[in-house]
Amino acid sequence: MSKIIENVRSEKMMQEELENQLRSIAHIGHVEISVSNMEKSLWFYTEVMGLVLTEQDGDYAYLRAWQDFDHHTLVLKAANDSKLLRMGWRVSSLESLQLFEKQLGKMNIPFEWVEGGKKKAVGDAIHFNSPAGLPIELYWEKELFIATDPNIMSKLPSHPSKYTGKGVSPRRFDHVNIMVNDVKKEQEWWTELLGIHHRYYIQNEEDVRLGSWLSRTNVAHEIALMRNSKQNGTLFHHLAYYLDSADELIRACNLMAENDIEIEWGPGKHGTSGAQFIYVIEPSGHRVEIWTGGFLIFSPDWEAIRWDPGSGDLGLNMWGGKAPDTYFTYGTELEKK
Amino acid sequence: MSKIIENVRSEKMMQEELENQLRSIAHIGHVEISVSNMEKSLWFYTEVMGLVLTEQDGDYAYLRAWQDFDHHTLVLKAANDSKLLRMGWRVSSLESLQLFEKQLGKMNIPFEWVEGGKKKAVGDAIHFNSPAGLPIELYWEKELFIATDPNIMSKLPSHPSKYTGKGVSPRRFDHVNIMVNDVKKEQEWWTELLGIHHRYYIQNEEDVRLGSWLSRTNVAHEIALMRNSKQNGTLFHHLAYYLDSADELIRACNLMAENDIEIEWGPGKHGTSGAQFIYVIEPSGHRVEIWTGGFLIFSPDWEAIRWDPGSGDLGLNMWGGKAPDTYFTYGTELEKK
Amino acid sequence: MSKIIENVRSEKMMQEELENQLRSIAHIGHVEISVSNMEKSLWFYTEVMGLVLTEQDGDYAYLRAWQDFDHHTLVLKAANDSKLLRMGWRVSSLESLQLFEKQLGKMNIPFEWVEGGKKKAVGDAIHFNSPAGLPIELYWEKELFIATDPNIMSKLPSHPSKYTGKGVSPRRFDHVNIMVNDVKKEQEWWTELLGIHHRYYIQNEEDVRLGSWLSRTNVAHEIALMRNSKQNGTLFHHLAYYLDSADELIRACNLMAENDIEIEWGPGKHGTSGAQFIYVIEPSGHRVEIWTGGFLIFSPDWEAIRWDPGSGDLGLNMWGGKAPDTYFTYGTELEKK
Amino acid sequence: MSKIIENVRSEKMMQEELENQLRSIAHIGHVEISVSNMEKSLWFYTEVMGLVLTEQDGDYAYLRAWQDFDHHTLVLKAANDSKLLRMGWRVSSLESLQLFEKQLGKMNIPFEWVEGGKKKAVGDAIHFNSPAGLPIELYWEKELFIATDPNIMSKLPSHPSKYTGKGVSPRRFDHVNIMVNDVKKEQEWWTELLGIHHRYYIQNEEDVRLGSWLSRTNVAHEIALMRNSKQNGTLFHHLAYYLDSADELIRACNLMAENDIEIEWGPGKHGTSGAQFIYVIEPSGHRVEIWTGGFLIFSPDWEAIRWDPGSGDLGLNMWGGKAPDTYFTYGTELEKK
Repeated sequence: MSKIIENVRSEKMMQEELENQLRSIAHIGHVEISVSNMEKSLWFYTEVMGLVLTEQDGDYAYLRAWQDFDHHTLVLKAANDSKLLRMGWRVSSLESLQLFEKQLGKMNIPFEWVEGGKKKAVGDAIHFNSPAGLPIELYWEKELFIATDPNIMSKLPSHPSKYTGKGVSPRRFDHVNIMVNDVKKEQEWWTELLGIHHRYYIQNEEDVRLGSWLSRTNVAHEIALMRNSKQNGTLFHHLAYYLDSADELIRACNLMAENDIEIEWGPGKHGTSGAQFIYVIEPSGHRVEIWTGGFLIFSPDWEAIRWDPGSGDLGLNMWGGKAPDTYFTYGTELEKK
Repeated sequence: MSKIIENVRSEKMMQEELENQLRSIAHIGHVEISVSNMEKSLWFYTEVMGLVLTEQDGDYAYLRAWQDFDHHTLVLKAANDSKLLRMGWRVSSLESLQLFEKQLGKMNIPFEWVEGGKKKAVGDAIHFNSPAGLPIELYWEKELFIATDPNIMSKLPSHPSKYTGKGVSPRRFDHVNIMVNDVKKEQEWWTELLGIHHRYYIQNEEDVRLGSWLSRTNVAHEIALMRNSKQNGTLFHHLAYYLDSADELIRACNLMAENDIEIEWGPGKHGTSGAQFIYVIEPSGHRVEIWTGGFLIFSPDWEAIRWDPGSGDLGLNMWGGKAPDTYFTYGTELEKK
Repeated sequence: MSKIIENVRSEKMMQEELENQLRSIAHIGHVEISVSNMEKSLWFYTEVMGLVLTEQDGDYAYLRAWQDFDHHTLVLKAANDSKLLRMGWRVSSLESLQLFEKQLGKMNIPFEWVEGGKKKAVGDAIHFNSPAGLPIELYWEKELFIATDPNIMSKLPSHPSKYTGKGVSPRRFDHVNIMVNDVKKEQEWWTELLGIHHRYYIQNEEDVRLGSWLSRTNVAHEIALMRNSKQNGTLFHHLAYYLDSADELIRACNLMAENDIEIEWGPGKHGTSGAQFIYVIEPSGHRVEIWTGGFLIFSPDWEAIRWDPGSGDLGLNMWGGKAPDTYFTYGTELEKK
Repeated sequence: MSKIIENVRSEKMMQEELENQLRSIAHIGHVEISVSNMEKSLWFYTEVMGLVLTEQDGDYAYLRAWQDFDHHTLVLKAANDSKLLRMGWRVSSLESLQLFEKQLGKMNIPFEWVEGGKKKAVGDAIHFNSPAGLPIELYWEKELFIATDPNIMSKLPSHPSKYTGKGVSPRRFDHVNIMVNDVKKEQEWWTELLGIHHRYYIQNEEDVRLGSWLSRTNVAHEIALMRNSKQNGTLFHHLAYYLDSADELIRACNLMAENDIEIEWGPGKHGTSGAQFIYVIEPSGHRVEIWTGGFLIFSPDWEAIRWDPGSGDLGLNMWGGKAPDTYFTYGTELEKK
């Protein structure tokens, strides 16, 4: 029999602990960006990347990978500038959403409650910014994708839409990456307030944090934070979609080459996550990562892996190829509110 | 502002709800089997499969895939018969383990508390059986694998041991599959008592459940339950390791052929999970699956996908090749207690 | 210094030997088939297989893989029945064509001289039948493919058309396979008259030839001959296109499944050639192989590899999966002249 | 009937033409190099590359890929310096060898006749140098590899040795690459004297030849000639082995990283040949290419593809990554005679 530690909790303690348990994010859900060249970007995401266009509505285009179950994982908004507008994270329950609202209030973090229906396919949501200014959306409800176009309907119940093999055809949306001035500070906020686990990080010779990777789910990261080497504020580094194999990654390289999309870096392999990657700049200037491989993290008491200067280069690319300078300096702006 | 539903809970309700939240399994951790031919099976798992032998101790051999972070994910025990001895699941916290003990007591399910140290590398554990007789182990602590052999030490902090490329070289342990007489009953018990989510299932023409796949994590299944078509009790169907790509799966086929290991079925692709698979019978008679592809499930309110007779064949193999009869009838025995 | 064997040849011997040297086939060039359902077959070859339609002219459609340099490697003719019309082989020079004409006359083999221009894109040609009735075309000139459609033009001089990634997208046309009553007899004729080297063969328990594979180039076979187990004459077994990787083969399986094209056999791997394969039946009933891997043969004195009953099953599928009966009995008819 | 051009040839013309036809190279067969660190290089070629060691004899080690049919395709000689010693090309017949001897005499090119048996596994051979000093060996006979070690014997008659999956495990030896001062002059000599076809070439802005790729067989190149940008003479650039898939290439990257072998360049893709490549420097300083993909050339009247300055960068790497400077300047020396 176990030596049960008698957990005597006061009612208040229990209430608080229960709320802590219930106030939980489930996973990253989507990213919304504005694009200065909607026509070319839409061509890129649908024809080259092979994402499925769920619908187009005024200035907005809603996109998803063939096995993304949701209505969309990427929103493009036609605009004058290419910016990160918002990133959406799904919470674990309706009550969870309410508890986040309560918590934000308690911490005096300004937020906006957005009624369901104001945004296509998304229910009630809370909008607020991280310390570095990342525009966050928490939501509980989002419509599932239901194929109605016979060209993409699959006879497989597990396929919300058919694998057509068109373009790069990633399987699913994966993560976002942001450049910030102070990685450590931002990471701690995400981990402490939002419960997004810290998975691995790189320190430089001065023991300054160069990058941190975080996730709520078993994937190795849903959000990455990289140090802006120019220290000029927060920039959107990239969004990422996931492929099934290294061979598909090479196929993606060929498609990029034939479609005149510049590969900024890669193929390479991040030693940190094991992600075999390429980075491309899409026609409106956003960086997009396509990757495969990598590992899952199951351990409930995972301790973030430290990559110090002795191993950091392997962390960036274990095959040795160096990133271009742009990789550490270039990003698109964030929408200011 | 949200229309907060006033959650007025009594102290007792809170206590119960908190315990429900805290009583939680994290993930499947290992499987223990006895093998009638230790020498040949050990050759198979190390030389053909390319698993790493952590240590051998008396009748026991402890194995893991190159990126399994734990001391072991597979235990072989030399014996007269080849049987499933036990499957280990890690819980989410020490308190969680104690709450499972409490719950089992409350439900009058017989269990054994096994002190840490009695089993190599594993801390305190609870042993009990499912309704169909599956021997379950819940535990909180397990040693991590620390490479000491220079031949397998990696300079990458993310690699508990080096990728050597020897044999099939799967990346990680994945799941177990059990044949039972009554799939539906067993599935419901796993979902209700243990909180292992129901992911998809197949019904036959008489609306009898042919198979159910369940997971606690984001992987599509950590345990599968298949109907024993002979209805002669519970059998161990297979254990599974995961590969990074279809190309590696084909490479595995070549290695099996050159090493005289019969491929029972495959390569094929389960439409249910998207797993591209082969099944082989190892020298002591256990079935082993090697697979790649598949999808992750992130949704916190996932509704199990139903495959009915119209689509069930696609669920089994969307490429059309039929499973041999043995696939539905053959399994190794369970250790009886 | 070498011990030069004095080669004293008479003028007549020299003339004959020179002609033997010059009378030479270079490679298989194309296959022409009639299709009972042009609309569906054209959809299959362009949308599912991803071949490029060079042009359509009346009842004829001319197709090629993205890196086939010629105007076409496959000709479809709309007709009432699905038949093999002809297979074209390119000779090594204009003089070679004339020397084949001379040789056929000498051997009293009926042939037809077809003036260039009567067939699209092909110059002067000789038509004749093999002993088993295979309709052969020898030609010297064929137009190269020149892309004019901007959607398929590549900026790479090595790409006659762009890799679009649409459908299966094989790299090139590869070979044909014919079922005949007497494999050995037919093989010897191809080797002796046409100089197509014998590469490997399978004998059954009664030492009857079950199959022979032949090529003039370094690829392992350009034409295969298989025993018709019903012994009811000559049938067209399949045509084959080549892929770059096992991963692309698996991708092809997925595309077949999603497009309701039945995979008759595979994925499997012929031990003989090392070809990793699938066979599908296209909408008009012809069998098409898609394959990857395999070996090249460089040796000028290659001795055909014998597969006897002890190894023949490995020769057919070294991964063990058995071919369906249809594989040994079903084929489309040959056009009778 | 054909309009036969009456080929009236004089006896002398016939003799000459027949000799031209018969004097023919079949394919590249092996490369011999000296290595300053035999122990580490042997470890690299056997453990990391996964080549099979046929035998070791005094200072010499004889190696081959698992499906190379010959006794060896690579010879290592323990020495003080790492140099290219010789490259062997197989001729098409015994008579062919004699005719090359005759031709070299006629052209006053110094050569040495090496009796069979003086070199392991190779019959009578002719040794001579190209204008740029490349040490060439022509031979007719070479022993086939016969596996005697049960660990590498295969039950497949098509496998001279078993696919073990150890290390990189290339399928076959492929080609050599040499840096010379004057590419055009050297290429023309190879094409005119030795009949090695010119396949593609790159010209710079001053219309100077930067590289030429040549082959006798259907593979795109068996020997490549690159301009030494320092113009300081002839250097051995690399030897190359061939892999079956892009996925295997990525696997090779991982193995190089884990074994501390620097990847000098890649993964990238030569637009010229379609070769997906990495280049590594082995422990004694020779450069080794590992590649996959690429195209075969079947046309008997192939016209060399010109890559001019507008497309040359795509020719070098169609994915955009630039070669390091060392790629254009570094090579190992040639053995001087």
